[in-house]
Amino acid sequence: MTSATASPTTWRRRGEQGPDDATIARIDAWWRAANYLSVGQIYLLDNPLLREPLHPDHIKPRLLGHWGTTPGLNFISAHANRVIRERAQSAIYIAGPGHGGPGPVANGYLEGTYSEIYSDVTQDTEGLRRLFRQFSFPGGIPSHVAPEVPGSIHEGGELGYALSHAYGAAFDNPDLLVLAVVGDGEAETGPLAASWHANKFVNPKTDGVVLPILHLNGYKIANPTVLARIGEDELTDLMRGYGHRPHVFTAGFDDEDAVSVHARFAALLDEVLDEIADIKERAAGLDAEEVERPRWPMIVLRTPKGWTGPKEVDGQRTEGSWRSHQVPLANARDTPEHLQVLEDWLRSYRPEELFDDAGRLVEDVAALAPEGHLRLSDNPHANGGLLLRDLRLPDVRDFAVDVPVPGASITEATRELGKWLTEVMRRNPDNFRLFGPDEVASNRLQAVYDVTAKQWNAELLDSDRTENLARAGQVVEILSEHQCQGWLEGYLLTGRHGLFTSYEAFIHIVDSMVNQHLKWLKVTDELPWRRPIASLNYLLSSHVWRQDHNGFSHQDPGFIDHVVNKGADVVRVYLPPDTNTLLATYDHVLRTRQYVNVVVAGKQPGPDFLTMEEALDHCHRGLGIWEWAGTEEDGSEPDVVLVCAGDIPTLEVLAAADLLREHLPELRVRVVNVVDLMRLQDPKEHPHGLPDSEFDAIFTTSKKVIFAYHGYPWLIHRLTYRRTNHANLHVRGYKEKGTTTTPFDMVMLNDLDRYHLVMDVIDRVPSLGARYAGLRQRMSDARLAARRYTREHGVDIPEVAEWQWPDVGETGTAAGGPQYDTGGDNE
Amino acid sequence: MTSATASPTTWRRRGEQGPDDATIARIDAWWRAANYLSVGQIYLLDNPLLREPLHPDHIKPRLLGHWGTTPGLNFISAHANRVIRERAQSAIYIAGPGHGGPGPVANGYLEGTYSEIYSDVTQDTEGLRRLFRQFSFPGGIPSHVAPEVPGSIHEGGELGYALSHAYGAAFDNPDLLVLAVVGDGEAETGPLAASWHANKFVNPKTDGVVLPILHLNGYKIANPTVLARIGEDELTDLMRGYGHRPHVFTAGFDDEDAVSVHARFAALLDEVLDEIADIKERAAGLDAEEVERPRWPMIVLRTPKGWTGPKEVDGQRTEGSWRSHQVPLANARDTPEHLQVLEDWLRSYRPEELFDDAGRLVEDVAALAPEGHLRLSDNPHANGGLLLRDLRLPDVRDFAVDVPVPGASITEATRELGKWLTEVMRRNPDNFRLFGPDEVASNRLQAVYDVTAKQWNAELLDSDRTENLARAGQVVEILSEHQCQGWLEGYLLTGRHGLFTSYEAFIHIVDSMVNQHLKWLKVTDELPWRRPIASLNYLLSSHVWRQDHNGFSHQDPGFIDHVVNKGADVVRVYLPPDTNTLLATYDHVLRTRQYVNVVVAGKQPGPDFLTMEEALDHCHRGLGIWEWAGTEEDGSEPDVVLVCAGDIPTLEVLAAADLLREHLPELRVRVVNVVDLMRLQDPKEHPHGLPDSEFDAIFTTSKKVIFAYHGYPWLIHRLTYRRTNHANLHVRGYKEKGTTTTPFDMVMLNDLDRYHLVMDVIDRVPSLGARYAGLRQRMSDARLAARRYTREHGVDIPEVAEWQWPDVGETGTAAGGPQYDTGGDNE
Repeated sequence: MTSATASPTTWRRRGEQGPDDATIARIDAWWRAANYLSVGQIYLLDNPLLREPLHPDHIKPRLLGHWGTTPGLNFISAHANRVIRERAQSAIYIAGPGHGGPGPVANGYLEGTYSEIYSDVTQDTEGLRRLFRQFSFPGGIPSHVAPEVPGSIHEGGELGYALSHAYGAAFDNPDLLVLAVVGDGEAETGPLAASWHANKFVNPKTDGVVLPILHLNGYKIANPTVLARIGEDELTDLMRGYGHRPHVFTAGFDDEDAVSVHARFAALLDEVLDEIADIKERAAGLDAEEVERPRWPMIVLRTPKGWTGPKEVDGQRTEGSWRSHQVPLANARDTPEHLQVLEDWLRSYRPEELFDDAGRLVEDVAALAPEGHLRLSDNPHANGGLLLRDLRLPDVRDFAVDVPVPGASITEATRELGKWLTEVMRRNPDNFRLFGPDEVASNRLQAVYDVTAKQWNAELLDSDRTENLARAGQVVEILSEHQCQGWLEGYLLTGRHGLFTSYEAFIHIVDSMVNQHLKWLKVTDELPWRRPIASLNYLLSSHVWRQDHNGFSHQDPGFIDHVVNKGADVVRVYLPPDTNTLLATYDHVLRTRQYVNVVVAGKQPGPDFLTMEEALDHCHRGLGIWEWAGTEEDGSEPDVVLVCAGDIPTLEVLAAADLLREHLPELRVRVVNVVDLMRLQDPKEHPHGLPDSEFDAIFTTSKKVIFAYHGYPWLIHRLTYRRTNHANLHVRGYKEKGTTTTPFDMVMLNDLDRYHLVMDVIDRVPSLGARYAGLRQRMSDARLAARRYTREHGVDIPEVAEWQWPDVGETGTAAGGPQYDTGGDNE
Repeated sequence: MTSATASPTTWRRRGEQGPDDATIARIDAWWRAANYLSVGQIYLLDNPLLREPLHPDHIKPRLLGHWGTTPGLNFISAHANRVIRERAQSAIYIAGPGHGGPGPVANGYLEGTYSEIYSDVTQDTEGLRRLFRQFSFPGGIPSHVAPEVPGSIHEGGELGYALSHAYGAAFDNPDLLVLAVVGDGEAETGPLAASWHANKFVNPKTDGVVLPILHLNGYKIANPTVLARIGEDELTDLMRGYGHRPHVFTAGFDDEDAVSVHARFAALLDEVLDEIADIKERAAGLDAEEVERPRWPMIVLRTPKGWTGPKEVDGQRTEGSWRSHQVPLANARDTPEHLQVLEDWLRSYRPEELFDDAGRLVEDVAALAPEGHLRLSDNPHANGGLLLRDLRLPDVRDFAVDVPVPGASITEATRELGKWLTEVMRRNPDNFRLFGPDEVASNRLQAVYDVTAKQWNAELLDSDRTENLARAGQVVEILSEHQCQGWLEGYLLTGRHGLFTSYEAFIHIVDSMVNQHLKWLKVTDELPWRRPIASLNYLLSSHVWRQDHNGFSHQDPGFIDHVVNKGADVVRVYLPPDTNTLLATYDHVLRTRQYVNVVVAGKQPGPDFLTMEEALDHCHRGLGIWEWAGTEEDGSEPDVVLVCAGDIPTLEVLAAADLLREHLPELRVRVVNVVDLMRLQDPKEHPHGLPDSEFDAIFTTSKKVIFAYHGYPWLIHRLTYRRTNHANLHVRGYKEKGTTTTPFDMVMLNDLDRYHLVMDVIDRVPSLGARYAGLRQRMSDARLAARRYTREHGVDIPEVAEWQWPDVGETGTAAGGPQYDTGGDNE
């Protein structure tokens, strides 16, 4: 299903003896150099090469950073360099214990990349001084593996996503090796625990390879870790249960010399990479659909926490204890004893052997690293924008639904989008994926299976083949929003495109993940060497208004509020009211870069209002007056403005406008629809913000505005707070009052229904009020009748369920179905 | 460490032969009855016992519900009834596949509990009709195992928390068996995948027993499940890796008769419960600290999805396929063929054997269930409020910090709270627990280890004993916010008390979980038979303003915004500005019921302002004028109001007030501090809302108000939107602009610093403005100088770091330390 296949030159077997003594010595020297630079970053303001005795003034006044995990990260980097060089294997490195920032920074510097990007951090003594000083220092770099670190696609501040990002990077990158280090602290998190099963979703032929390295250093901040304390039998059972062949490597707990440790690990790494090469070779000889899931190797690396650091500080065990987690010596500046321990510790790495007089890494050690883009810190996959290709997008006009008059067709918006996405997938078979937590079909996107399949590398029954599962495909489904989000992030960060479809309520499961991704985007916006990546696109269907039987637990429109907090530079929110606007919206968002685009759209049959040309214009404007729906006249202001954002609110506003036409024909009503929510915000706050003059022209400066909104009503007040007419704005939205009900009953429960909107108009427009108390009561009666009908029959009253925009009847066009179907979001 | 120990009468071994034929027949009859009632709930409006041929009018017009998982849930219920009765074993049942609501509803009805609670759902034909009709019907009950279902503490709408809730229920309930059914869909989620490891945290002697039953029915909504497709070897490796002894039971895929299936499962259940009884007996003979973690049994129950349902519908496989997930026959009302299949299906359960002429369950079948509170639907642990005891709380005044004048002491607020919590734990050893993701000590609560320990039942080294780990203790730490949240929820829902301490930014990890808990609370508020449970209390430390080196990824104050969306009836937010107010706040929240209390408090050394008596009054009021900090005079309005909410904003507002005293002594400044954020809201919106008259008296109706707020500034606008003086409100807060910096530099980055607040006053108070351009520029200069100093030295400029409230100097009292220490949230 995908054109990506491994090129024959990769995945070499070693096919000879292990590394010679000189290479082992070089690995050890590299490791010492990386460890030295790591300690230097945490502690030193000056005297970077200890060319003079350490003095308290050389020590930073605030010691901030994490030593504990760093030597392990450096150990893996040193050994990875050797095998990458020998095998010319393209690889990226994901440091799950991302708080060990000094390690990847040190390695990027030793590889030369750091100085190429940050040219003032030179390969000499002054550059070393700058490297040390900037670390976790005001105006410098964070102590984590932040976006500032070359070679990284993974922050690691919030733990749990190392393997998800790794597998996301591996999809459709058949030549790529992803070294994914999982900390034993991180391994306790839910998202990480589930992510081991990702190996049932990658295809050995068409995808890359993730090599998980579980780094058991035994301790977290203040506690031992679970996986370090279940015994090797349970641990290896667990890894086999996850579908891996575990290789356990233990070092650092005895007096074994460094040469022996390195030789053992080098041999293990060769064995594991040869295993992988064998798997790849077998897969290369088969069709992608014939490949069976192998038992992928993984490594358990058991070492002391803070390995090679001080054994004891103030009489308390430090190496091999949680006390190494951060800064093992807190008072090096104030107590001479600590200062001495620090100096001894730094000198134990023998910096004089590693750096020449000018402060440059000696050539023999530098030769360990691969060259150019094979350097872990310079692999273009870790700066995905470099590899990003525009999508080949079909013309949405070819997928338009026909709308002869507004309301004259009834379609399921996401189902129509699915047809367009089918063509998107067909045209972009190797760089576009759709991720979902078992909801792709539920959200009506199943047309995509005409051209692709759900990739599934667990057991596959014959019956599955007819159910759209296959060994390779562009759709990936697992019942874990965390995995969908993490995979998509990894896929985007390595330069591809995609979208994530989910239920609106449960997308909160990834609130914290999208926070981190948005922060990553915000920081990379400021880093010119980081090239823009494709936006992360959500399609949230099964939304708050159509949880007819799932009820209250499935109602939550707050994800919009959540992302809006993260700021205008990286967030876009769209609420297309019908099918053609949804198509126009997605045609836009798939072209954008560096955003999170939240698109909320129903999957139930609903009326279409705009032709495709109108939809494209409407989406381009982001909001606009629907003159056909209102009763205003040129040359005079309307008496009231009805605004809608979201498909259900739009339906109710139009039905209210219809009632007003009938019962208050003299009232001049303006109907406004909002697709791009950020158009409401002050242009000083958001680049999409409508200029005040345009806003005032549409929303008036003095008339009452009744706003029917998809989500929690406060967001509209927040966005329009600075607008001239804000005091006249009355917002109806979701109120956390849902229960088990029918679609219209749900709308009534929240006072968002047509009858209530008319009552709002009567209550608020000064010229109406008490004069129309009779009409008001008739509207109230209509609500009560609708409620009674629902309780009796279990469906909505026909006058609501079958209502259609009056123009439809006039033109004799049949709308084709009820406005509220009887389906419900039944999953 | 806890007084809870198993009573000798529980955990009986069976010690004889398996159940006789009559009992097996009774189990089968119960299962058929429960299945019949489940199908009836999904489909039938009338004719509940098929006393006449099925007619389309008997079918609901909207078919909403989930059949697929239900027969499995019913199978377990039927068998559980037998063993509970025979062993007189107190047990609760957690249905992870909670969307299978018809099952637990049916069983609650068969056990009689349903009719006791909902007296109009009687034990006769009319009651059956009501039972069926109400299901997933407007005004009825949701299709999930919602709070309305007796015997449940677990909604199951959002999947992933079955085992976490189960283990939370088991803590300190040594006599309780928790049957926890995990769906194979749910098993793919992150939180569930991690929760298997909870068995390393329960003590076999002092805690109850969780029996996980992994129900492998093979399919989700539209896909196979991972765990059903990894082969039995990998699956049992996985379960062993999780620390279990797996028992695999397969049924329903061949022609085995029901008697044989039931006999096999009954024997298995006896074997497993005897295993558990043996473990319990061994533990009973030991001290809690001597007990080693056993290999707890678990059951893999592999059955077809939609077991006993239609084999095929419209020629497509239905039983044993994802097509059984929901409603296998969608058109029973419209197509005679479907109607016939439905009738045959219903009759296959032989309802005429199960219900007597009046529609009552026949006595012989009813005799399977245990009696009274041993019924799964009536166990008081599943209606925890019944068991809730008030906490024995020590007087916070005994834990007050001494504050001779405002600012005259410097303490770490959470450390002092920890001392009080120590006494709380000492007095409540068996019904209060503290949960944390490895952050209890980081958040400075380690005093609690004077009286208790971190409960840890994985491998325990001698060195751990000195590190506060033990086999039993009231603190539970795992690096998973999901587990902490789920355990605490389970603990509270079964009638105990507790709190969850976490970093502020990463509490978003449980956004969706707290959503569900809040919805549970809201619904139970409306169910009189559900007794109130203790509130869920958060202590969020390591907050947004003190992520000095962790930097941007650790900054997020948005959890407050998230919970506020859920509404006033269940949410409280507190921002105590110092130690005594934190103590007073916690003294209050631990007494509350049915809320989520969010308390945000720093852990860094900070100045104390209020004595305990003042703090108690201030917290009782929720907000108030700090007259000592302002310069107003009785009888005239102030010129400007400075408001603060949160510890860092309070510090900056006081420093600004100090600057204003010095530079603008004639300006009458009012200083207001807000502890209880909900006091700001309209009293119509929140019961804590200050009446408008009081609000206006404090915030004035016309003066400029400068509000320094802990979080995203918009929330303050949202809360005060309807207040008279809202137009004069100017809010400073967090702006997503953090980077690696020092504490004051962080505050400056967000324009929340003292100098900026003074500039705000000059810019906004009409009497000032251009006349004070010189002072304004001096403030700007001071900021620039502070910024330069930070960049140069890596710490804050002494005039800021050492600033103290002027009264302290005047009284000659030493404040004891800097206002901004050099620590930082260094984890």
